[in-house]
Amino acid sequence: MPARGIVTLLTDFGVDDAYVGAMKGAMLSVNRDLTIVDITHRVPPQDVHEAAWLLRSAYRYFPPATVHVVVVDPGVGTERRAITASAGGWYFVGPDNGVFTWPLRREPSPEVVQIERRDLMLPSVSDTFHGRDVFAPIAAHLASGTALRELGTAISDAVMLPIAPVQVTDDAIVAAIVHIDRFGNAVTSLEEDACRAWLERTDGDVRVRVSGHVIEGVSRTYADVASGEALALFESSGCLEIAVRNSSAAEALGLKRGDEVRVERV
Amino acid sequence: MPARGIVTLLTDFGVDDAYVGAMKGAMLSVNRDLTIVDITHRVPPQDVHEAAWLLRSAYRYFPPATVHVVVVDPGVGTERRAITASAGGWYFVGPDNGVFTWPLRREPSPEVVQIERRDLMLPSVSDTFHGRDVFAPIAAHLASGTALRELGTAISDAVMLPIAPVQVTDDAIVAAIVHIDRFGNAVTSLEEDACRAWLERTDGDVRVRVSGHVIEGVSRTYADVASGEALALFESSGCLEIAVRNSSAAEALGLKRGDEVRVERV
Amino acid sequence: MPARGIVTLLTDFGVDDAYVGAMKGAMLSVNRDLTIVDITHRVPPQDVHEAAWLLRSAYRYFPPATVHVVVVDPGVGTERRAITASAGGWYFVGPDNGVFTWPLRREPSPEVVQIERRDLMLPSVSDTFHGRDVFAPIAAHLASGTALRELGTAISDAVMLPIAPVQVTDDAIVAAIVHIDRFGNAVTSLEEDACRAWLERTDGDVRVRVSGHVIEGVSRTYADVASGEALALFESSGCLEIAVRNSSAAEALGLKRGDEVRVERV
Repeated sequence: MPARGIVTLLTDFGVDDAYVGAMKGAMLSVNRDLTIVDITHRVPPQDVHEAAWLLRSAYRYFPPATVHVVVVDPGVGTERRAITASAGGWYFVGPDNGVFTWPLRREPSPEVVQIERRDLMLPSVSDTFHGRDVFAPIAAHLASGTALRELGTAISDAVMLPIAPVQVTDDAIVAAIVHIDRFGNAVTSLEEDACRAWLERTDGDVRVRVSGHVIEGVSRTYADVASGEALALFESSGCLEIAVRNSSAAEALGLKRGDEVRVERV
Repeated sequence: MPARGIVTLLTDFGVDDAYVGAMKGAMLSVNRDLTIVDITHRVPPQDVHEAAWLLRSAYRYFPPATVHVVVVDPGVGTERRAITASAGGWYFVGPDNGVFTWPLRREPSPEVVQIERRDLMLPSVSDTFHGRDVFAPIAAHLASGTALRELGTAISDAVMLPIAPVQVTDDAIVAAIVHIDRFGNAVTSLEEDACRAWLERTDGDVRVRVSGHVIEGVSRTYADVASGEALALFESSGCLEIAVRNSSAAEALGLKRGDEVRVERV
Repeated sequence: MPARGIVTLLTDFGVDDAYVGAMKGAMLSVNRDLTIVDITHRVPPQDVHEAAWLLRSAYRYFPPATVHVVVVDPGVGTERRAITASAGGWYFVGPDNGVFTWPLRREPSPEVVQIERRDLMLPSVSDTFHGRDVFAPIAAHLASGTALRELGTAISDAVMLPIAPVQVTDDAIVAAIVHIDRFGNAVTSLEEDACRAWLERTDGDVRVRVSGHVIEGVSRTYADVASGEALALFESSGCLEIAVRNSSAAEALGLKRGDEVRVERV
């Protein structure tokens, strides 16, 4: 008996309607032994960038061969392609609109396939709900042992999102806020791994500027500052984050996605 | 070893409290191998019509023998009956208040049983939380192989909700908005199957009137109109829907449940 | 083959981000056959008292050996201890800040262990997300058969929350509101078991005072009063609750956590 297949779901369907339930029913109809895990269904409607970011923070924590389904799909019913991919040992299923940018960019030897197996989809495919009619059953088959290449034709031009560029000079690193989480923490595009050498050269003596505010140094944890004080630290997915202890940095400092963050040598 | 039993949950308990967790605990205490799927827990409090509608859009996508539990139960603690039913190959468990109107109406040979097996409920049944004390354990037993008829006495007068009538004349079809989804799409009671012949006679040349607005024709998908434009299309559960591309039709057009929708021959 | 392990999650991570998904990935990476159940992720940020209360209302409904993980952790990254416990046949994993006060107080022979097994955590432990890096993998090991005592050193000074005291005199019982649920029901610290003898002596002839309002008698169920009327009743976890039929008592009567509730002999 093969190991139980695992499928994760990341959508903008919300949790008020029955859309997610219908997707799970479609998957369990293919294989009732699947383990299905919700990442979130509260991506802001049609926000492909946010979906890509949230996938980035979760997919690596799942066991090999987990199938990650992302359905944030403003182009449903148009000519946009449906794709499935493997990268770094995980599988991915969803629309070809950039939601898989992170794993396709940073994992070794990614493979992308345009989904063509009409016989593995629901008998009647609607024009508005490919999450249920296409992606759910395809993901269930993939998680049950169907090979990636049996699902369609390999392609090499999957849509990729532009990743907020990080500019590094001798004096400063300039990045951008890419995500505000539920606590109001502002996560930036600056990854610790990418700036470790630069940081070591500064001997830790840096200052962070964001939206008119100045934060001295990079902290290790929230408790390094007093309640209500702002700090910068590397958060749990390895990116520089602007936070306010016991409060919302987004509200307290007026931060929003896209804001520039500048780390300067003192 | 029989196949793993599947139970779905559809309630108005919300996701802030521990009520749903307690229900799942009660089910896993009967059979720890069950697969439990949330449809939604955010039905507006006591909104039996909305619960019936959401069940309609999801139950058919689950494998045969899935047990669908609905707990939207304004009459808990009164003399309202607790029922379980089979219809079309699926099972249903919940209060006798109309939440199962759709499967009982449209599936072949429905059977309804009043739940009487006190010995299969939790040892102490509260007056306020039959979801946990009655429906959860009964559903778990049903999903684990207990026969429907062993759970109580067959009845033939289950409560049914009035379904918004659809009036068809030669010139027009009049229906009503029955559901507003998370994207602000307004779903009507007009099912495509029920008006296919009428639509074919019009040669597609129709106009939709709703709340003072006029929409020309029925589209196939959202992308058939420009961003911000209103359209009518048959949505993923087969009903006529009023939408605005990349926006909320409910807000943009001022639509609400109960509003009349009129499809006219041009 | 041992029974499938069950793990429940109760956090303040919300359902908008990917934090909960990452925790589940970390658990399934230890053992892909676990059953994972969400209690809620919408505890108000850092509200340890609310987390303790919600755990109280759910943990007893799960089968023996279920592992209950609570991550409401304002002290993450500080010297606060990570603990695991057994009490009444269930297991508990989380920060040592009082979230397990209820089971540790009321179940027989509780045992608490400070978690020390670095080798069972994720290879890299962040300073900000012990839910994923520490508690999730430890819980997965516990649910997969690792013994409690293998996880660290027994301690006897776990942090306990002060429980709202209930004052009983011959004439009255004074308690406090400890929880407002999603329907606006106000649950108090007064447990039915603790006041049964007192209530019997009053012959049911009591009056409840809360926030300037007077409620006559204790009802059995919501339907005992007319729509819109206030009532007091023992709710599904055994505590005295102030409710308004078909409405929110919190809004209608202006109730909030901490408000005094007084039950008087008439």
